[in-house]
Parts: sequence; structure tokens; C-alpha cells
Amino acid sequence: MSNRIPVELPKAYRLLNHGPTVLVTSAHGGASNVMAAAWSMPLDFSPPKVAVVIDRNTRTRELVEASGEFALNVPSRQIAAQTLAVGSASGREIDKFGEFGLTAFPGGKIAAPLLEGCLGWLECRVIPEPHIQGTYDLFLGEVVAAWADPAAFRDGHWIFEEGTPRSIHYIAGGNFFETGEAFEVKK
Amino acid sequence: MSNRIPVELPKAYRLLNHGPTVLVTSAHGGASNVMAAAWSMPLDFSPPKVAVVIDRNTRTRELVEASGEFALNVPSRQIAAQTLAVGSASGREIDKFGEFGLTAFPGGKIAAPLLEGCLGWLECRVIPEPHIQGTYDLFLGEVVAAWADPAAFRDGHWIFEEGTPRSIHYIAGGNFFETGEAFEVKK
Repeated sequence: MSNRIPVELPKAYRLLNHGPTVLVTSAHGGASNVMAAAWSMPLDFSPPKVAVVIDRNTRTRELVEASGEFALNVPSRQIAAQTLAVGSASGREIDKFGEFGLTAFPGGKIAAPLLEGCLGWLECRVIPEPHIQGTYDLFLGEVVAAWADPAAFRDGHWIFEEGTPRSIHYIAGGNFFETGEAFEVKK
Repeated sequence: MSNRIPVELPKAYRLLNHGPTVLVTSAHGGASNVMAAAWSMPLDFSPPKVAVVIDRNTRTRELVEASGEFALNVPSRQIAAQTLAVGSASGREIDKFGEFGLTAFPGGKIAAPLLEGCLGWLECRVIPEPHIQGTYDLFLGEVVAAWADPAAFRDGHWIFEEGTPRSIHYIAGGNFFETGEAFEVKK
């Protein structure tokens, strides 16, 4: 099981602030699913909120609308192949967890499962905004619990060092960037 | 002047898809301003749309609401210090362009200026959604023109090689990540 520690909610935005691609997990009525999303971002600090685009044609959309919940999982480069795969297949046709060898574990506050091989996890409840959901496929959520792998994120900071797992940033056509060198700008 | 070539609109999302921190420029009635935003993302492919959080207490917010336009500029690491600085100062108190040595040039379709030292530029018209603007500080825009520095992005692809300028990803407290190593996942 992935090692994980709680992230205090006012720091939860930092799991997403650098713009990684995420995996969106969802569950309702005994069914669950996972999709990839390059289009997500923080929306507020405290209480933390996020925004994510969930296409109207996806199984994830059905599960998120039915449950009012979703989780954003920040994958490491180790599962980049699965990240690409779950973004290209539909949960209507296959069980993506089994098909792509993704292992899930329970979250703390919501029913959506959390994924092994990730560096951070944000459990979210949908903030209902039917107009923008329907018009733009845009979902807003309040983060109700957050977790991180302490090998990658602890005390509110990412620890990307030589040899530690990195988050990933999708472009298109199977091409990603790894999160790169950290640097500090002094005021 | 920054070298720049047009980006075809259906590829414009790729300037933001990997989650870089951006600089938001705006202009109205002879005034202009620039702020930093870690919270932006693509919202649609074609016509391309974007989402960005613009705090209600900013001068940028006034200029964007008055003009109905903004530009998202993707800064290179070379102007990381200015990116941090314009995110920490208010355009109500100082001229941030002059104060921080940022040079602007005119866009093609909107009045908001574009910034030298950036790798990509998205000229956007606000899609009016007063409820989410007022409730969440969340602005949606349609991209009406897009440009890139061909040293960093051409033929619809980022070219980050050894020694070429990289985009940046803000975390907190003056800490950034550079966009890192590119890799391709084969299906």
C-alpha cells in the first residue's frame, strides 16, 4: 500500500499548484472508475477548492454526478503508462483498474477510491454549479481530505530530489514532461 | 522583441496543458497591468477556451471586467524573479512593468499587452459568467489568438532541449519547478 500521511487542508492546494496531470477517481452504487485529467487546478486556499474538466461523454461524469464526489490523484512517473491508458479507454467498456493493473484503496471521507502509485490525493465533494457543469463540463469541488506520500511531499512541501518519484505533466500524443528542477527566487 | 509565430487555435491548449504558471496581462482606458496566476487551465480544444482565477481584490480584476479581455503569457525561467514580483505587488500602487523591468508589445486581437521573456501567449476574450466570477473569482475566456516563441514551441509542440528556455511551475514561498525532462509513453 502506498505510504501516506494527512495533508493539512490549507496546504492541500500545493498538491496541484504546479499543474500536474491528475487521475480522477469516482464511485457510485458499487461501480467505480478512473480517468486522466490534464485540466484541473486549485480554486481556493481555505476551505480548499479545486476545478476540473470532466467530459460529458465519460463514465466518470455519470459517477461524479450521481455521487457528488470525486478524488484527484497525483500520479508519479512510474504510472505514466497507466495514466495515458485510462485517459484513452472508457469505463463503460472495461474495468480500467483491472485492465491496467491499478490498485485502489479506500479514502477517508468519500466513497471514490484512491490509487496506489500516486504522490498525493485530494478527496473532493462537488460544489453544485449545474450551469457550468452543463455548459463547459467544468466541475468545482471542495477538498474535504488530502493525503501525500511522505517520500514526495511532507510538511507542506514537495520533496523532489535525485531519485525520488516525480509528478507528470501531460501534453498530447503520449508525451509528458516530468516535474523538473526546483529553484527558489529570493525577493 | 521576442521572436514569435502564430499558433493555430486548435493547438493553443498545448501552451497550457502541462500546467505552467502564467502572467495575466490586461488593459483598459489607457491603463494596463500584469499579475501572476498559478491557477489557470485549458477548458476546451476548439474553439479553445481557458479558465483562470483572478482575485477580486486585484487591479487586474478591474481591468479584465472593464475590458472583457485578458492575455495569458507563459513566462520562461529567465523571468521567474519578475513572475514572483508581479504576483506580490499591486498595480494599484506601482507600475509593475516599469518597476520590474517588464517590456510589453501589442497583441493582435485584444488591447492587453503581451510580455517579452515569455514562451507562449494566449489572447482571450472573457466569456461572461457573472455568477462564477462573483462567487469563485473564476474567469472563463475564449482564446482568439495564440503565439509562441519558435525556440520553445513550434509545429504544435514544445521543444524543451538542453539549454533552451523552460516554462515554470509555481509552488509557494518563492519556490518553483522548471518544466522537466520530456518522455513519451507508447500505447
